[in-house]
Amino acid sequence: MKPVKVGLLGLGTVGTGVVRIVERHQEDLMSQVGSPIVIEKVLVQNVDKSRTIDVDAAKLTTDAWEIIRNPDIDVIVEVMGGIERTKEYLLEALSLGKHVVTANKDLMALHGRELLATASENRCDVFYEASVAGGIPIIRTLIEGFSSDRITKIMGIVNGTTNYILTKMSQEGASYGDVLKEAQELGYAEADPTSDVEGLDAARKMTILSRLGFRCEVGLEDVTVKGISAVGKEDIAYAKRLGYEVKLLGIAERQNESISVSVQPTMVKASHPIASVNGVFNAVYVHGEAVGETMFYGAGAGELPTATSIVADLVAVVKNLKIGVNGLGGGGSFKERVLKSDEQISSKYFLRLHVADRAGVLARITQVFAEYEVSLESVIQQPNAELAEAEIIVITHNASKAAMNKVVDAFETLDVIQKVKSVYRVEG
Amino acid sequence: MKPVKVGLLGLGTVGTGVVRIVERHQEDLMSQVGSPIVIEKVLVQNVDKSRTIDVDAAKLTTDAWEIIRNPDIDVIVEVMGGIERTKEYLLEALSLGKHVVTANKDLMALHGRELLATASENRCDVFYEASVAGGIPIIRTLIEGFSSDRITKIMGIVNGTTNYILTKMSQEGASYGDVLKEAQELGYAEADPTSDVEGLDAARKMTILSRLGFRCEVGLEDVTVKGISAVGKEDIAYAKRLGYEVKLLGIAERQNESISVSVQPTMVKASHPIASVNGVFNAVYVHGEAVGETMFYGAGAGELPTATSIVADLVAVVKNLKIGVNGLGGGGSFKERVLKSDEQISSKYFLRLHVADRAGVLARITQVFAEYEVSLESVIQQPNAELAEAEIIVITHNASKAAMNKVVDAFETLDVIQKVKSVYRVEG
Repeated sequence: MKPVKVGLLGLGTVGTGVVRIVERHQEDLMSQVGSPIVIEKVLVQNVDKSRTIDVDAAKLTTDAWEIIRNPDIDVIVEVMGGIERTKEYLLEALSLGKHVVTANKDLMALHGRELLATASENRCDVFYEASVAGGIPIIRTLIEGFSSDRITKIMGIVNGTTNYILTKMSQEGASYGDVLKEAQELGYAEADPTSDVEGLDAARKMTILSRLGFRCEVGLEDVTVKGISAVGKEDIAYAKRLGYEVKLLGIAERQNESISVSVQPTMVKASHPIASVNGVFNAVYVHGEAVGETMFYGAGAGELPTATSIVADLVAVVKNLKIGVNGLGGGGSFKERVLKSDEQISSKYFLRLHVADRAGVLARITQVFAEYEVSLESVIQQPNAELAEAEIIVITHNASKAAMNKVVDAFETLDVIQKVKSVYRVEG
Repeated sequence: MKPVKVGLLGLGTVGTGVVRIVERHQEDLMSQVGSPIVIEKVLVQNVDKSRTIDVDAAKLTTDAWEIIRNPDIDVIVEVMGGIERTKEYLLEALSLGKHVVTANKDLMALHGRELLATASENRCDVFYEASVAGGIPIIRTLIEGFSSDRITKIMGIVNGTTNYILTKMSQEGASYGDVLKEAQELGYAEADPTSDVEGLDAARKMTILSRLGFRCEVGLEDVTVKGISAVGKEDIAYAKRLGYEVKLLGIAERQNESISVSVQPTMVKASHPIASVNGVFNAVYVHGEAVGETMFYGAGAGELPTATSIVADLVAVVKNLKIGVNGLGGGGSFKERVLKSDEQISSKYFLRLHVADRAGVLARITQVFAEYEVSLESVIQQPNAELAEAEIIVITHNASKAAMNKVVDAFETLDVIQKVKSVYRVEG
């Protein structure tokens, strides 16, 4: 019953949650792993700062190496964030035989391969359930739950900030700017919200999910990214009128051996299970050849939900320690990824166009669609009195991304079109 | 690269799916476990029957013992169903050091403890992901994903037949009898539908889920069960009018160290994520102290979804074989369960009453609620011209089950009440 000793790097929101759960659930954890789990040392920026939890001052340090190189420590829990320096710490920890649990999506998206390889060489575990979708155990689900299946599609609402903003815009008819300001006041969005609203955070998470789902080496640079800052309240109003919701979706698809991964504002049919995921909640929809449609829903962030995933990983490390199999449960070998070309990426599209309000405009526009063999599912034309022009809304049938790009390029120079206001992918 | 040899007991719908997935995904499986997985022998009832898949006739046998006692076989996959005889087979297989993967909820609900204990003595794995909610990996999620949390509530739509029937009743305003007949014609309900519609199938699954969620020894006899055969289309109409859907929910709750487990038709608020789970789909909603609300959604039955879970378990067995740790990953020790008393079980209730259509009736009824300290959230009274009586619909605030039982008993003898038509628990 020798205690398992943990070095905690970081005592912000999530780190505090880890301390709380380890203390509060100590008895339950003991009954599962047979040993006490002890937080031995904690890296902080300021030892004297007042905190909402009681941590023995002797455990606090501002020197990461004191933790990394402490021979008593079995497991490093990394919740400090950052990339290069953090990677250096964790590589050193692994080389010293310490196991790693991390919530760091940026690090895993950019350097996951190197960390996992180093872990394997040193027979150490690296677990990172908390890096995607907070409390939802989606990483174990992809690695273990669907190990027998061939996953063909993953769609994720994996960023709570943008889902909060889009939900508010949809429910209240408010503009992007107003809701963003409100979200910042409530602490749901950062002072500099770029990483969230421009889709980079979601792209990092989709890198991790698509890598595990398709068992191939996906890099962040493989993900096409578009954020929500240009989503107009008019787009959302039209979406609702047509029976859709606008969501920032990460979409990873596989066809034969080719994949595509993107993050983009998407019109989702209201009857699709992911359309009703609202507010800061996250959800990951997974389609497998055999299992069909599944969806996993829960809190995507927050002190305790995220800490739940971290401590669950910690339990897995300790169980492995007990039976001496750390570093052996790896997800198998990963292939090189082959990306789909724009010709191979296919979906429906929604377009909103501002056009001259005169005869023959619709004919000119539909002719362009016909030229690039994009067929149309529905068309709405209506005058916009304010602008002395008309608005045309089109939903296409399935079309290749390449064809749609050509259509949009043609529209940019078509005299009857004042502006291509929006182009969205359509799902469900 | 010695192949892992599997003995398959049963070649019905799910067994056929297992053969298909092992063949179709052989390459993906190999890349994960490093060995071929071979279906070595298959137990069937009739060797000569024509089948939708091609299985070498030499592999078929009608003698289970030939498989169980075959020294070449490493893993038994049990998809034959049945209880006593099947248990005998599996206990013998475990005693011979063979690992077991089973989809048998009846067996696991009734004899899970004995099977798991025998497995542990023989250092064998018994995995049973497919026994609950088909393709949804809810068992691993409870054991591993939420190992760090304290689960307080599990609500499940874990029977596809009844969810199909209730969905149809809700969408079409049809009666229970008509929809049941249609479901039987479509093969969604058995010729004898009792086990599904009376809630027994769901109760067995809830036994398994609550055992894992609360880490205590729950038995089938601990589950209070009520089926859907008495659900009237009027109940569903009122539910919709008040913003609810009627679902057959398994509900397992824990408060301090006491638990309650039930299966019953329940009015679920339309905004609750589980309310929009329709048709034959299953979903399990889990609330944890730390993680908050989560939900897992997918196909609850069917050849391939269920086989996905079985083959994922098979992959887990083979990974354990490779590193020599079968039978060591157990879920830890389970406590004795303490059941909540009826005084401790609390929820809102919906009641539909047929009453005499005269003055003072509502006063008499509300007096009874007051006497047992049940307060009311909303009341609708309306005449029922057809019956020359009035109908009263009540939704209460939270009340104990004991108090509600007393209220209903009092109503049974109250002269102004013709009939207590329905009493449902209300959630969300």
